[in-house]
Amino acid sequence: MVTATYHIAVDALGSESPTEHIVVGARDFITSNPDCTLTLIGRRRDFSDLPEDRCHIIDCPAAVPQHATLLDVLRNKRDSSLRTGLNLLAGKSVQALVSAGNSGALMVLGRQIVSALPGITRPTMIKQFTRSTGSFWMLDLGANLARRRSLLHEFARVGSAYASSVGGLKKPKVALLNIGAEAHKGPQYLRDTAVDLVRDPQVNFVGYVEAHLLFSGIADVVVTDGFTGNIALKSIEGALAIAQQYVRTSFKASDFPEEESVVNTVNSTLNAQTYNGASLVGLRGVIVKCHGNTNHIGIRSALALAKREIVAQVPQRLEAHFEQSQSKN
Amino acid sequence: MVTATYHIAVDALGSESPTEHIVVGARDFITSNPDCTLTLIGRRRDFSDLPEDRCHIIDCPAAVPQHATLLDVLRNKRDSSLRTGLNLLAGKSVQALVSAGNSGALMVLGRQIVSALPGITRPTMIKQFTRSTGSFWMLDLGANLARRRSLLHEFARVGSAYASSVGGLKKPKVALLNIGAEAHKGPQYLRDTAVDLVRDPQVNFVGYVEAHLLFSGIADVVVTDGFTGNIALKSIEGALAIAQQYVRTSFKASDFPEEESVVNTVNSTLNAQTYNGASLVGLRGVIVKCHGNTNHIGIRSALALAKREIVAQVPQRLEAHFEQSQSKN
Repeated sequence: MVTATYHIAVDALGSESPTEHIVVGARDFITSNPDCTLTLIGRRRDFSDLPEDRCHIIDCPAAVPQHATLLDVLRNKRDSSLRTGLNLLAGKSVQALVSAGNSGALMVLGRQIVSALPGITRPTMIKQFTRSTGSFWMLDLGANLARRRSLLHEFARVGSAYASSVGGLKKPKVALLNIGAEAHKGPQYLRDTAVDLVRDPQVNFVGYVEAHLLFSGIADVVVTDGFTGNIALKSIEGALAIAQQYVRTSFKASDFPEEESVVNTVNSTLNAQTYNGASLVGLRGVIVKCHGNTNHIGIRSALALAKREIVAQVPQRLEAHFEQSQSKN
Repeated sequence: MVTATYHIAVDALGSESPTEHIVVGARDFITSNPDCTLTLIGRRRDFSDLPEDRCHIIDCPAAVPQHATLLDVLRNKRDSSLRTGLNLLAGKSVQALVSAGNSGALMVLGRQIVSALPGITRPTMIKQFTRSTGSFWMLDLGANLARRRSLLHEFARVGSAYASSVGGLKKPKVALLNIGAEAHKGPQYLRDTAVDLVRDPQVNFVGYVEAHLLFSGIADVVVTDGFTGNIALKSIEGALAIAQQYVRTSFKASDFPEEESVVNTVNSTLNAQTYNGASLVGLRGVIVKCHGNTNHIGIRSALALAKREIVAQVPQRLEAHFEQSQSKN
């Protein structure tokens, strides 16, 4: 028997999809990852099918509602599944937390309960996208809506350190998301940030990237504010979803409407873009957010990502990176 | 012989794609539209193949360079193809101008040469997207980067009037693009704009729409600032392009790699999203902007859109709409 090395908590409430998906995703994950144990936080009866030796259950019927406001989240002191999970992470009982619940609550309570790494002012949401060759990462995807030069600079450093540790890239190419590639394009705060990034020896800044070239390989790390990043992410998701619809419709109208294999290949490739979760980075612990209406594959992918961040020691690497940069300043 | 009723100018320089595409697109268009004549502005020798009775050529070798800055554009007083086209439009020699050149220059010179309609402070870029049933329109797509409440309110009115005239919708559903559907979501200026729109009897405001639901039918008109709109538009374009790549790759790896018909159907459906041009509305004349690297189908679609706007009397309808709303205030 292998002794489990990695401990991951799952906030199993507050998701828009049925708990069954979480159960199936969790079982798939522990089956293929004998070095991991899970702590599932939710209604105990939902998890009776999971093996007790690998899955610890914390009975906690209270979820943060999907549509709770910031004030609701902060005022409500009851032990919601999310608070419970974050407390486990802060107390180092687990090394990572995966949640499919309310993202706003995750960000707000995450900062409150799990403290930020020294040198990092705001945790940020980052996600990996798959290109035909390799990947790119984009941040911030919604944790910070302010469009501030100093914040964007910080995101560039965090994104660069993240892509180095998780993606194994030596000098990730970092670009600012803008509406044109020329130096004079876009709003002032972006041009100011570009000036700062050119001067920062820790960031391999390659200039602006336009949104239709995100998948082109121009940049490994794409930096933007949380509002714009969220719009870009969801625009991509929406477009890929209609592309899947069109593929299915075109097949049905074709000479071989029975042929499902290609449709399935295309759709699973396109789905893959939205499967893996997004990570909240900059805190003293690994936090992965699943898509709100995820299925079991989404849960499994989010768990795999959480493990990957633990193995890559993302929080530790970020801390070292920012300590180093502070001592240089 | 049919007497031509509609006169459209084409700024044939400054495009990233070969002039040949413009020639083929123009020929396709006049063949199927006997009630239209074209005025092509560019190098005369490029258009020798087009029928003289339907196509007037203005020899003008000077283009606004694709990467010209704002200052370059304003300072350069030479008669570029774009200036020439805008002068024709302002002088009412033509009813519409189609350009595949520099969009920034088009917006800046458009405002300078062709005046804005009364009651409209800023012309705005709008584009139609095709859903599985019907369409939606999004604006602004890059003409105005400021995120101001009064501007967004104006865009909502312009978009609503545009969707009524071109799309034939009686009470178009208007939504603000945001990162959540709940009232408390997003930055302050969006929530302020929402308050204004709820109170405006001329706008059928339905709330916020998130970017992954753009194609869902929640909204007929999606309102946003030019920076965000440009990012959303290009994110959709980029995602549809990779979807096409995946479709082709999956087919090649399948049991019937020779079967091109479905690939072509899918790809032409997805292409259609980017074929039709975007319109610069709010000026005294119809202006349609083609995609920079458009092919002949893109040119033909942009010409068809220009004709559609002339027929629907978009500038006149907008003017009536804003006069009416001013007299009510």
